[in-house]
Amino acid sequence: MSLIVQKFGGSSVANAERVFNVARIITEKYAEGNDVVVVVSAQGDTTDDLIEKANEINPDHSKREMDVLLSAGEQISISLLAMAIEKLGFPVVSLLGWQAGFRTGSAYGNARIKRVIPDRIRKELDKRNIVVVAGFQGINRYDDVTTLGRGGSDTSAVAIASVMHADLCQIYTDVEGVYTADPRKVPNAKKLEEISYDEMLELATLGAQVLNNRSVEMAKKYNIELEVLSSMTKKPGTIVKEAVKMEKMLISGVAKDNDVARISIIGVPDRPGLAFKVFSKLAAKDINVDIILQSIGRKDTKDISFTVTKGKLKDALSVLNDYCKILNAANIVYDENVAKVSIVGAGMESHAGIAAEMFEALYEAQINIQMIATSEIKISVLIDAGDADKAVTAIHNKFFPVDQ
Amino acid sequence: MSLIVQKFGGSSVANAERVFNVARIITEKYAEGNDVVVVVSAQGDTTDDLIEKANEINPDHSKREMDVLLSAGEQISISLLAMAIEKLGFPVVSLLGWQAGFRTGSAYGNARIKRVIPDRIRKELDKRNIVVVAGFQGINRYDDVTTLGRGGSDTSAVAIASVMHADLCQIYTDVEGVYTADPRKVPNAKKLEEISYDEMLELATLGAQVLNNRSVEMAKKYNIELEVLSSMTKKPGTIVKEAVKMEKMLISGVAKDNDVARISIIGVPDRPGLAFKVFSKLAAKDINVDIILQSIGRKDTKDISFTVTKGKLKDALSVLNDYCKILNAANIVYDENVAKVSIVGAGMESHAGIAAEMFEALYEAQINIQMIATSEIKISVLIDAGDADKAVTAIHNKFFPVDQ
Repeated sequence: MSLIVQKFGGSSVANAERVFNVARIITEKYAEGNDVVVVVSAQGDTTDDLIEKANEINPDHSKREMDVLLSAGEQISISLLAMAIEKLGFPVVSLLGWQAGFRTGSAYGNARIKRVIPDRIRKELDKRNIVVVAGFQGINRYDDVTTLGRGGSDTSAVAIASVMHADLCQIYTDVEGVYTADPRKVPNAKKLEEISYDEMLELATLGAQVLNNRSVEMAKKYNIELEVLSSMTKKPGTIVKEAVKMEKMLISGVAKDNDVARISIIGVPDRPGLAFKVFSKLAAKDINVDIILQSIGRKDTKDISFTVTKGKLKDALSVLNDYCKILNAANIVYDENVAKVSIVGAGMESHAGIAAEMFEALYEAQINIQMIATSEIKISVLIDAGDADKAVTAIHNKFFPVDQ
Repeated sequence: MSLIVQKFGGSSVANAERVFNVARIITEKYAEGNDVVVVVSAQGDTTDDLIEKANEINPDHSKREMDVLLSAGEQISISLLAMAIEKLGFPVVSLLGWQAGFRTGSAYGNARIKRVIPDRIRKELDKRNIVVVAGFQGINRYDDVTTLGRGGSDTSAVAIASVMHADLCQIYTDVEGVYTADPRKVPNAKKLEEISYDEMLELATLGAQVLNNRSVEMAKKYNIELEVLSSMTKKPGTIVKEAVKMEKMLISGVAKDNDVARISIIGVPDRPGLAFKVFSKLAAKDINVDIILQSIGRKDTKDISFTVTKGKLKDALSVLNDYCKILNAANIVYDENVAKVSIVGAGMESHAGIAAEMFEALYEAQINIQMIATSEIKISVLIDAGDADKAVTAIHNKFFPVDQ
């Protein structure tokens, strides 16, 4: 008998039919003799509906009240799913975040799980109940309701799996697993049987939003085996784990990220420490900088280019404008019409020439590279947004030839 | 500075416009320097929508899961109301039932408040926050969510007012107060300035559903002054209190109750204790019996007639059918096409002839009386359902002449 944690996203429980589909997946595992804890998100559009209601009344609402509002979404989905499981004749109990023992920090709307106290879940499992837990929510030290932010239900599931030493944590989504590229864009993209935590982390960061990043980090930390799979098909998914047994592929995937903007500061005086100051000013405003490129300009100045997410562009520009007045830097230019395309692969570490192959693919497709960044298991290039899909296909065809 | 508890029903917060209307009523009282605790029901049709969702999935759902589902309704309304109060620029915090300290019994769907622990509410009032509390809900000893049943938000409000020794508890509804008869049916019905708890209790029981009965009982027990008033108009409402100062009117109201059915057992053997046995059998099935009439039939038998609510008719008939086989009682007949019309008044105790006046009014309107029941402050008659509105008008005109 194993302890299995299953997580179902909002689209998996969007209507009565899908709720029963999910109920059948759950009860099958239970009927095999397993203990089953289920984590559910709010139904389909519920969250968007609630956000609309809030904005109608007060777009400047406090985050605390927004969390009270949004957490009603999972409250509805857990009780409906429990009713469907009852209908199939299985014992079940639903638990809200606070009942399931989720204690979080106080950053409303984006709270971090501090601990999970699984006493109640354990008690219900001992009674042989299927336990349906509201994902995405917890309470802080003031006993106020908090939400975990986007993708938080993945983290809820992995947190329960970690603290209860689950044998498997299944993340059901609307895709069949992790692919070598976005299968909607690259028809010959292949589903991976396995992928390492690190590769998955790079892919998630790079815009292949299959799994929430925090959840992968937590799974890595507590060595919880994840399976990403579809609630609509009965196929095995992709296992995310520490040691990938199969022969390492050179790269495990090609990802694209459109949520990126490039900023260049032209003509920064060439004095030591200035670049550091620019980035510490940005960090102070909670603006994360990604790819950075520094080049020598004319007349003892240099140009600094870097990328930020599109949502932070305005803030970043305002910080830089103030700063450049002091610096007498010549000019600030920016470009939102860019995309980041990356390859990720644990095999990269031991194989030279991967970067060259990637650049060759881009050259053959006549795509201009603006910036390059590399890590041990990742190579990213910044290119024109309009070239992004073409770039992904070209790179994918290079590493995963169509006739393969 | 006073402590005021205000309760707003679902129709008072049905849409954004009404939410702001309510927010203005609340903040006006707060701006006068009062501490304000607000109890809110779920928005307009939310409860019905949630019930529909549940029935679509499993009409035989457990009551426990239904309470998890339904309590999401107030969760939505308290956060939206809090956001509206924020928008008006006032400090506010919303609290769910468990956060506000509502501890209940475990009868899901119809739980009774066991105690209210107002520590959190007190703390928020000390910070000069307006406190918006989810009505209708609490948690039981297992930390599971419970709901209080129909009209439970009134009880939530009175419970807070009681435990916190509030100076006033205002129950905002869609009527302007308590009337001498239903103003939609009787155009010259008058709004009462004051009414005693006992009279209000009789009126509530009799189908004039302005206030939930449990809430009036609790207000009476803790001597909390209630004001029933409209959230749509700015007029003073009706005060419900122990000692009515104004000169007692003979009767304070005429009420009609259509949710009633008459059952007659014809030809019960005339032996002592048989009637008792009939009613104890019904009580064992949780069937409340109202007006009872026993009459001598033919040949040493008697007929027993009584009324039950329409919802209990089927259950009552099945109990009686089993029992009458044993008794060899001749026959059971029933009639759903009846209504109960009552007059209520503390003045009745000291004035003879009130009943005669009521019967005279019915006689003049040519309405046949099937059954009669009286208490110290109430006289009820059972009549044809089709005569009910005519009876209310006739009786009302007798006691409150139109030219008065």
